[in-house]
Amino acid sequence: MRPGHRLERLIQISRAIGSIHDERELMLAIMRHLTTAFSSERSTLYLHDPVRGELWTRVAQGLEHWPSELRIPQDAGLSGRVFQTQEPMCIADTLESSCFSRRLAEQTGYVPRSMLIVPVMRTGSQCIGVIQLLDRRVGYFREDDVPLLEAVAVQVGIALENARLHEAQKRQFNSFVKALSTALDARDPLTALHSANVANYAMGIGEMLCLPPADVEWLKIAGLLHDVGKIGVPEAVLTKAGRLTPQEFAEMKQHAEYSRNILSQIEFTESLKDMAVIAAAHHEKLDGSGYPDGLAGEAIPLKARILAVADIYDALTQTRHYRIGMPMHEALVVIDGMTPGQLDATCVRALKAFLGIR
Amino acid sequence: MRPGHRLERLIQISRAIGSIHDERELMLAIMRHLTTAFSSERSTLYLHDPVRGELWTRVAQGLEHWPSELRIPQDAGLSGRVFQTQEPMCIADTLESSCFSRRLAEQTGYVPRSMLIVPVMRTGSQCIGVIQLLDRRVGYFREDDVPLLEAVAVQVGIALENARLHEAQKRQFNSFVKALSTALDARDPLTALHSANVANYAMGIGEMLCLPPADVEWLKIAGLLHDVGKIGVPEAVLTKAGRLTPQEFAEMKQHAEYSRNILSQIEFTESLKDMAVIAAAHHEKLDGSGYPDGLAGEAIPLKARILAVADIYDALTQTRHYRIGMPMHEALVVIDGMTPGQLDATCVRALKAFLGIR
Repeated sequence: MRPGHRLERLIQISRAIGSIHDERELMLAIMRHLTTAFSSERSTLYLHDPVRGELWTRVAQGLEHWPSELRIPQDAGLSGRVFQTQEPMCIADTLESSCFSRRLAEQTGYVPRSMLIVPVMRTGSQCIGVIQLLDRRVGYFREDDVPLLEAVAVQVGIALENARLHEAQKRQFNSFVKALSTALDARDPLTALHSANVANYAMGIGEMLCLPPADVEWLKIAGLLHDVGKIGVPEAVLTKAGRLTPQEFAEMKQHAEYSRNILSQIEFTESLKDMAVIAAAHHEKLDGSGYPDGLAGEAIPLKARILAVADIYDALTQTRHYRIGMPMHEALVVIDGMTPGQLDATCVRALKAFLGIR
Repeated sequence: MRPGHRLERLIQISRAIGSIHDERELMLAIMRHLTTAFSSERSTLYLHDPVRGELWTRVAQGLEHWPSELRIPQDAGLSGRVFQTQEPMCIADTLESSCFSRRLAEQTGYVPRSMLIVPVMRTGSQCIGVIQLLDRRVGYFREDDVPLLEAVAVQVGIALENARLHEAQKRQFNSFVKALSTALDARDPLTALHSANVANYAMGIGEMLCLPPADVEWLKIAGLLHDVGKIGVPEAVLTKAGRLTPQEFAEMKQHAEYSRNILSQIEFTESLKDMAVIAAAHHEKLDGSGYPDGLAGEAIPLKARILAVADIYDALTQTRHYRIGMPMHEALVVIDGMTPGQLDATCVRALKAFLGIR
């Protein structure tokens, strides 16, 4: 390969993988780009699983199905050796190599003739996996292919670390949202799990409406956070058995605005933007009779309409201090009575589809 | 430069900058590594500030001082031109270049003879800044230096994007912690700001004890979250005027364990690990008379001892339902009375130092 060419290929791969922050997507993208960049028949990125003492990889099988995993012992075959020694290995012809295990290759579903394997290092020189290229489409792998693949492996190591950190931060935030909403709901034993239920129904409606995955994820967080303003409502009101007085009801309704106040202090990342405004609008009604702002029709964002349907359905089916929970069909009759005057008919249909009702 | 050499330099820079997630640190590291890798006298990374229509950079002045910024109009000079055209520019000799502005160079404090400038692109081909190398230590910059610097610029673009995403996620998490703890404290008007105060005192003690910045940051989050378990304590107990009955006091004490339960559901990242165990231990006393576990002496982690001192100092100086707040010196007399029996003497000294008392 022409040396200037190397730099270009490396840049192409860096560009392609440097901004992917989902480990699963990243692994598949790396394997795809390696196959193209090195004109190989197959490329495998094995990651080390220290708990199980194995090297594992994802197997892409198409978009519909969640890719399954392939696992080998951490000291098995040539990849195992590269992982142990942290030295690259180039085999022009496996038939002439004494250390090639045909048996293991058959288990992984492909027996290559030529192979190139390099370790993937983490900052601080810990080996976190290996990259394995199988069969060049024309000719075979040679020693002078090694430097470029090693350079790519550095980029792969950095991208993997970034993806892991990104996912760890996401898990931290999401688990905090979950733990807090659970604890808040639990202030009233009868509303325990309300936020998790609303998140679940809202995601279901979003999926039935074929919203993009990022919006479905948004709805999950919004479902968990929509009632966060109940922090500001006294338990005497939250847990009162029987009807609320007009003044108590007014206090209860305040929670939507409190939610907006609290959420607007949070510097949400791009993917969760508009959380404060929309999550606080989960009690708005299409006819303008809702709160906190009495918005009507198109002024209520789709996501807020989804939350409204999810919220009401859970409120109706769960037992409350002032009445026992309704069975599903009864709750849907009440919801039908509010549609299309107050609730969005499309969202209600999507809820029914999610619940398995035609 | 020998072509294989280019790949090696690129790898070196990638390794050096790929895992830095603090934008400020990253900018300074990039400039440092560029200077070495290209044997230049100076290297500047200008970032675009779309709000002010400027290109700006950090000026490293040593470790003690926060680096200040240098700003130029986004269309000024050669860097402005590269930013606008997104085309690299190589000037062997500024004396022979008609487009070089000596006046602007003088403003930025350095007049170069030879320059190499390339744009920094973001995924999606938006230009986010420029890299500018000033004066090769021996000789001058040439056209064949451009490809490597362009390749480095790709890495810089990716690293900057990752750092920004990382910081955005951190801000999201931290602002959520802040907003929630503020809302929780506000359930009782007399404890409003308690968590923020404890965070502040705990950070102050940590700094006086010369703990590493990461630990001081840890103490901030712990201060904000230590009382999160009060979610589970009814307002009737939280806001009762006058002495609590033994049963009410038992309910109040439950909050430490509730904090542990809630925090243990959060998948904290590495930098915030042990939050659940340590933050829940903020009512433990050295003589074993504290709660929830009655730990004694060395069994109480340093960070928990710091939180204990911060917590008690704020509780004493703020007005409570059962008594009015004490002035600083009076509170410190009470704290001295609890030291070293219950409170850590070193932490108490550090609090006094932070408060400016000898």
